[in-house]
Amino acid sequence: MSRRVTLLTDFGTADGYAAAMAGIIAAAAPSALIDHASHDVPPGDISTAALTLSRYAFLYPPGTVHLVVVDPGVGTDRRAIAAFVDGRFFVAPDNGVLTRVLQGSQRVSLVDLPAPPDDASSTFHGRDLFAPAAARIAGDEPLSDLGTPVTDPILIALPEPTRTGDRLSGEVLQVDRFGNLITNIPGRWVVERGREARVRVSLDSGTVIGPVRQTYADVARGELVALVGSLGLLEVSVRDGSAAQRLGAERGTAVVVA
Amino acid sequence: MSRRVTLLTDFGTADGYAAAMAGIIAAAAPSALIDHASHDVPPGDISTAALTLSRYAFLYPPGTVHLVVVDPGVGTDRRAIAAFVDGRFFVAPDNGVLTRVLQGSQRVSLVDLPAPPDDASSTFHGRDLFAPAAARIAGDEPLSDLGTPVTDPILIALPEPTRTGDRLSGEVLQVDRFGNLITNIPGRWVVERGREARVRVSLDSGTVIGPVRQTYADVARGELVALVGSLGLLEVSVRDGSAAQRLGAERGTAVVVA
Amino acid sequence: MSRRVTLLTDFGTADGYAAAMAGIIAAAAPSALIDHASHDVPPGDISTAALTLSRYAFLYPPGTVHLVVVDPGVGTDRRAIAAFVDGRFFVAPDNGVLTRVLQGSQRVSLVDLPAPPDDASSTFHGRDLFAPAAARIAGDEPLSDLGTPVTDPILIALPEPTRTGDRLSGEVLQVDRFGNLITNIPGRWVVERGREARVRVSLDSGTVIGPVRQTYADVARGELVALVGSLGLLEVSVRDGSAAQRLGAERGTAVVVA
Repeated sequence: MSRRVTLLTDFGTADGYAAAMAGIIAAAAPSALIDHASHDVPPGDISTAALTLSRYAFLYPPGTVHLVVVDPGVGTDRRAIAAFVDGRFFVAPDNGVLTRVLQGSQRVSLVDLPAPPDDASSTFHGRDLFAPAAARIAGDEPLSDLGTPVTDPILIALPEPTRTGDRLSGEVLQVDRFGNLITNIPGRWVVERGREARVRVSLDSGTVIGPVRQTYADVARGELVALVGSLGLLEVSVRDGSAAQRLGAERGTAVVVA
Repeated sequence: MSRRVTLLTDFGTADGYAAAMAGIIAAAAPSALIDHASHDVPPGDISTAALTLSRYAFLYPPGTVHLVVVDPGVGTDRRAIAAFVDGRFFVAPDNGVLTRVLQGSQRVSLVDLPAPPDDASSTFHGRDLFAPAAARIAGDEPLSDLGTPVTDPILIALPEPTRTGDRLSGEVLQVDRFGNLITNIPGRWVVERGREARVRVSLDSGTVIGPVRQTYADVARGELVALVGSLGLLEVSVRDGSAAQRLGAERGTAVVVA
Repeated sequence: MSRRVTLLTDFGTADGYAAAMAGIIAAAAPSALIDHASHDVPPGDISTAALTLSRYAFLYPPGTVHLVVVDPGVGTDRRAIAAFVDGRFFVAPDNGVLTRVLQGSQRVSLVDLPAPPDDASSTFHGRDLFAPAAARIAGDEPLSDLGTPVTDPILIALPEPTRTGDRLSGEVLQVDRFGNLITNIPGRWVVERGREARVRVSLDSGTVIGPVRQTYADVARGELVALVGSLGLLEVSVRDGSAAQRLGAERGTAVVVA
């Protein structure tokens, strides 16, 4: 069976950096099935990449190699790591981009990848370090051959929702392509709280979205709606429209359920 | 032989929704060759998706599975369908996005896909309903196992060109990336009419494009040109430029050949 | 072993033109592994495409077929060519887009591909000429079966850097997604010159970047830095920022090392 290797970067495709990584993998692991997950992560945006990765990493079959290169620290002494987490492999800079796939996982092995040889670039470790490591894993080399074990990966601080009595507080984690506001408030909290709760986006403007619905179609077109989205998190949307635009909301905007 | 599965959505790639669908397919149909046709359909734009799909669907080999998720009605009671049309499979919401591949096809089978289980999302049927169905087809399950036969797919009204004597009337279907205006006027009508005909874009401004040419190079750089394009439809272009920008034309702009 | 076929175009993906080419290849070479390198080349920008292609072409394994369709001259009498260069195959319009992969290569064979049949489009040779040729190569047909040998491919004039004593002069070849300025000044010239040299971007504004560093981390965040980049060329960057924006630089902006 051919292994899948997915690529997630902030490179775009136009410059050929993403294709360079694919070429390295194709050369070293000729039967690998390469899947470009996305090259459109905003440049250097580690927390968005971490969230995006969490949307698909464990939907791929065991044995998949997920290569993630969002690497604003290239050229610093940040480590490069490879990980085995719940059956999938990950290769990435050790900058927190794996935070969401590492958290809550039981079976994790991690190794520190050695720096590339001296004649490699100091600016494109995607090509000279990460893609070669991913290709070796795709070629069935054991993780332990790639580097020395480590147990202290960098984790980024994720904004924590809070619960005080009937009041749930959180914030917008991400605005997606449709203008949906994905919050950090767990859907099960909302269900436990009772769906009749009022959702407010931003304490200042205090827009009240209304009760928590099942799906977009529970409101009329153009109306605001709160619901539990596909990541199991509270989301605020406009049916057939953009909640971000309507509310002027962005990452970090406060959200309260009360 | 591995089956190809193509994906066409309005998800973009940055949020990881498209990769989630690919992961589901990779897990359920490990040898499937997954091809991202496009994730850049304008959000919710069913008629553009229908036209885009028609550009490639039947160029892929028989047995290919085309997965199309442009689904503004997710969460309503719109049906989900799988179809077998002239040797290719299609999985999509029943909202008219298959109109152009269904029209004029002789051999069509259609089934209504059951709703996803209760614990699935109400907002991301691409992951929870459509991708699993596509994967089952890629795994050689017969269409009849996936749902109950139906015969009344939703078809969107396509703008119809008209012909009155020597006068052909139509409109712009799509502005492509190069600013070419793809109209709904069949190229064979133009050929029957005689290529010396005058093409006018928009009855109001009345810009006369001139006779219908064979190719861009029949006019000088920067000049307007009318020709029969790669879909067999009349197109209006600017050589090495954008006709949409030059003429202020957009989808729906009237076009007359007289 | 399945052959890889890569696609590089200026089509975008939304219109389905890129998927049409992939479909043609999938139909004619069922086991080919198709890799979308990029469809985001700026429309008609041959020199950018040539540089992008050079970033990945020879990283792919021998036998790979690289299909490049940036073809502003479609419909003119420009030739279509297929080439075998240092173990990889290339199919492209003969407009200079292969300049960088042809230059400096020892083992080159080239053939002139015959025009498509009369019933093919005059506007979409990507589908009707180039993709079918790539598919035949992917299906192991010898290059000599595809066309007649030629030895005079079109080469575009590449801006040449100059060296006068200790002074190196060149220009910006490309601004990449991160706003890095990739120049045409060879890194080995810089190393020979001595890294303590002062780099100036644009003779007019005369901004002095400072000595040539090893990597971004050698300066503070937000600072300008000159270094030898991943193509072995002098680059000017802002650490965690955009040098293009900071300096108002673009393709063609003069760069001097003195």
